[in-house]
Amino acid sequence: MELLEKRIVKDGKVVDRDILKVDSFLNHQIDVELLSLLAEEFYNLYKESNINKVLTIEASGIAVAAFTAKLFGVPLVFAKKSKSANISENVYSADVHSFTHGNTNKVIVSKEFLNSCDKVLVIDDFLANGQALIGLKEIVDKAGAEFIGAGIVVEKGFQPGGKMLRDNGMRIESLAIVKSMDPENGIVFEH
Amino acid sequence: MELLEKRIVKDGKVVDRDILKVDSFLNHQIDVELLSLLAEEFYNLYKESNINKVLTIEASGIAVAAFTAKLFGVPLVFAKKSKSANISENVYSADVHSFTHGNTNKVIVSKEFLNSCDKVLVIDDFLANGQALIGLKEIVDKAGAEFIGAGIVVEKGFQPGGKMLRDNGMRIESLAIVKSMDPENGIVFEH
Repeated sequence: MELLEKRIVKDGKVVDRDILKVDSFLNHQIDVELLSLLAEEFYNLYKESNINKVLTIEASGIAVAAFTAKLFGVPLVFAKKSKSANISENVYSADVHSFTHGNTNKVIVSKEFLNSCDKVLVIDDFLANGQALIGLKEIVDKAGAEFIGAGIVVEKGFQPGGKMLRDNGMRIESLAIVKSMDPENGIVFEH
Repeated sequence: MELLEKRIVKDGKVVDRDILKVDSFLNHQIDVELLSLLAEEFYNLYKESNINKVLTIEASGIAVAAFTAKLFGVPLVFAKKSKSANISENVYSADVHSFTHGNTNKVIVSKEFLNSCDKVLVIDDFLANGQALIGLKEIVDKAGAEFIGAGIVVEKGFQPGGKMLRDNGMRIESLAIVKSMDPENGIVFEH
């Protein structure tokens, strides 16, 4: 998506070959006009798929997921990071490892809000190693729901998540895929 | 707001005299249609105030804050819960005590995204003891920005936060104020 790529080039900060900061418009300060347009893209990509629920993970995916759910006219569910090691039997849970923070979080979704009738579109702001998506897919599977696909704002194409998930047959639509980046030469996108 | 009160009565669960669960439409599964209407209420309440930024705190306030920011045509900033005790000098921080979880979190906002030109509307899903709002107000003050007011979805009027903040001169607009509740007799709202 050209508009997004231009914005990433303009306002993103390439800290090093791995770290891209987009916190001025995507995941700390949020440009809600831009996010509405991203949501329209997700809607156009998945409008034939008859989804009835949008699923994301707290916190930075919630805003774009909310605009997306609004366009589809379906509820949004966000998976919560659980603080406690004891998981109640009323929730579906999965472990999500964060390479950025070097830790593993349990994420949970109440069994009330996901079931075998659901056709789920997963929305998230970033895809790098794919751990969050694997966790959310696991939760969708445990609920007996159908994983229709994922909509990602920024994919780091040089990290293994996207390829691995697509090789597993999952539909992953990323609005911008960073092929490579470094602080001196900037960002190259995949098309 | 009658629509919201009816929804709370219909789908909220009064666990005891203190705990109201509204996670089927507000803070786990999210009814985005309802939240859009709540955002319109916040817009109508504050449209004369010339705000230029919406501020919330992760995670469950983000969706309603995003719809609100969209109506105002201004950016949304969400304060992050910091995992580390070491706070960088690039952020404004405040301590927020949670009575529910019995702990204190540091919340932070990058100095890049809040400054003395900002007129800030704070949006959150719940107001009980007021600790989150006090923390966000502290961050707004540290940035030299102007705190215009707060928009709250559900206020527990029987807890001290709302009164304390209003007594301090803060404008607090709550769309539903629960006066009292218990599992047998249900919920009484303040009007």
